[in-house]
Amino acid sequence: MSKIAVGIDIGATYTKYGLIDPKGKVILSDKIETSQDPDIDIYLQNIHKAITDAFDSQSDAVELIGIGIGAPNANYYKGNIENAPNLVWKGIVPFVELMKNYFDVPILLTNDANAAAIGEMTYGAAEGMDDFVVITMGTGLGSGIVSNGEVVYGYTGFAGEIGHTTVNYNGRYCGCGRRGCLETYVSATGIKRTVYKLVADFLDDSELRGISFDNLSTKMITTAAQRGDKIAIEAFKYTGRILGIKLCETIVHTNPEAIFLSGGLSKAGELIFEPVRTHLEAQVMPRFKGRTKILPSGLEGQYAAILGAASLIWNRNIKENSVDD
Amino acid sequence: MSKIAVGIDIGATYTKYGLIDPKGKVILSDKIETSQDPDIDIYLQNIHKAITDAFDSQSDAVELIGIGIGAPNANYYKGNIENAPNLVWKGIVPFVELMKNYFDVPILLTNDANAAAIGEMTYGAAEGMDDFVVITMGTGLGSGIVSNGEVVYGYTGFAGEIGHTTVNYNGRYCGCGRRGCLETYVSATGIKRTVYKLVADFLDDSELRGISFDNLSTKMITTAAQRGDKIAIEAFKYTGRILGIKLCETIVHTNPEAIFLSGGLSKAGELIFEPVRTHLEAQVMPRFKGRTKILPSGLEGQYAAILGAASLIWNRNIKENSVDD
Repeated sequence: MSKIAVGIDIGATYTKYGLIDPKGKVILSDKIETSQDPDIDIYLQNIHKAITDAFDSQSDAVELIGIGIGAPNANYYKGNIENAPNLVWKGIVPFVELMKNYFDVPILLTNDANAAAIGEMTYGAAEGMDDFVVITMGTGLGSGIVSNGEVVYGYTGFAGEIGHTTVNYNGRYCGCGRRGCLETYVSATGIKRTVYKLVADFLDDSELRGISFDNLSTKMITTAAQRGDKIAIEAFKYTGRILGIKLCETIVHTNPEAIFLSGGLSKAGELIFEPVRTHLEAQVMPRFKGRTKILPSGLEGQYAAILGAASLIWNRNIKENSVDD
Repeated sequence: MSKIAVGIDIGATYTKYGLIDPKGKVILSDKIETSQDPDIDIYLQNIHKAITDAFDSQSDAVELIGIGIGAPNANYYKGNIENAPNLVWKGIVPFVELMKNYFDVPILLTNDANAAAIGEMTYGAAEGMDDFVVITMGTGLGSGIVSNGEVVYGYTGFAGEIGHTTVNYNGRYCGCGRRGCLETYVSATGIKRTVYKLVADFLDDSELRGISFDNLSTKMITTAAQRGDKIAIEAFKYTGRILGIKLCETIVHTNPEAIFLSGGLSKAGELIFEPVRTHLEAQVMPRFKGRTKILPSGLEGQYAAILGAASLIWNRNIKENSVDD
């Protein structure tokens, strides 16, 4: 009987899930809509049915050994989703406890970026690294910090909020209620704000002048930059410069071997990696010059989130079965 | 036979050393001058003689079980002191290797702030805490970060350089070769620079106007502030405000339970603690408001450095003898 872990990635619109074997092979993956009903029981019934059906569809005998979940505003210690602004379930949701009414296996919950970090360590490009950081650039900027081979969760379970270091104390308004946070500049939303700022500041022609803020996407900005659009190219330079400079603060804190950039914005490749590396190396404390690799994620983009979530289970299992740990 | 660890704290002028028992009791402590001779063998002979004499002076039978050393620019992994600007031995000094010619016991070396963090965890106010940060404010600003109960050394062994986060990219020149580092504002030297800035900017009478930069000390500024000197009071407010605001960056990285302030500047008590707490709470991301204690060190000031150094040995021993580690 093969052992299978389930990885679930809860997003505002969709919940992705997958059946993952011990080697990180995705046996099956699919998605359901994240219920927009404030009654969370409806959602729990849906995800329970989806996973049960997925197991029933397997021709080989398989055993569910645990469920790992990545979700916004997740508290690893308590198994709660706490005050997630983009989810319909308000307040503090004891998500793991509720899931246990449906599944009698170990269930672990953490935020998406920590799940990405564990995924990177278990199946990705951080294999064998004890000290690294994963930056996820989606709607916001998330981060997962690994030191001494362990995810840094911190005292209240919310470590790794690098998106809320401050770039400019009088800068852009942030969803957290403050101003000038890194994620207001470096994220899918951040680069859109930068395009709008640049269109406001400069006279250059740009295909992006014809697109509304609501319709603008990272992909459009990337395509425009690849076609030579000056505003789009400058938006990547601006974004990469800010990220490169601010990552110097992360480096002096935990001195990682590598910083992985993942999420939509990282798909722009050298458009974003080049200015990050250049400005990081120019700004970083001399002792750290040339000592931190800036790398793309080693996880297949479409599966990164569910692999990360499932690795919460596999990583835990590896440790429990390890002789010399 | 009682087991004894030696703690050594290497400073630019003096080397303090002490014989410490497993409970953190200082059996004997003394200091020698840190040799100003570039030939390090002279220094090694001196410290060897001092420690041997200290052991010979004990009436009870004692066994040396290890030597822990705190030093500037120390690389924990390699046992090196690397390019320490304030020590006479230049380049990369394989300090542990050299000490092993004199002592046949385990020898561990780390930087002063990491030693302070281990000391705080072993004998001080961080007992039982898994996630905390120690800030040492002396000539510079050092820091030791503990996450998941372990010191964060990082990939190259130089994690915890919070003194080199940036307050102002066009700010004060720093010994590291860059500008605006936190330690150019928040340290014994930093507050002196702030007094000079304030004397330059304001018209208020101040007893500090009569003192040259070279003669000015943290203690003088503290005494003046306690007497109501406006420039001195403002210097502490300025220093505490900057530290409070910048510690928010540390909190979003590792989410510590407490941040301990130690070293000369912390002796000013509420003069520095009050503005740190006020500005930290005003600036920190809402999720962390009221969740981080700002505390003085729990180690006796005069012994803090040698206790921290000795705890490198005791902490290691505790772990090796632990059943469930």
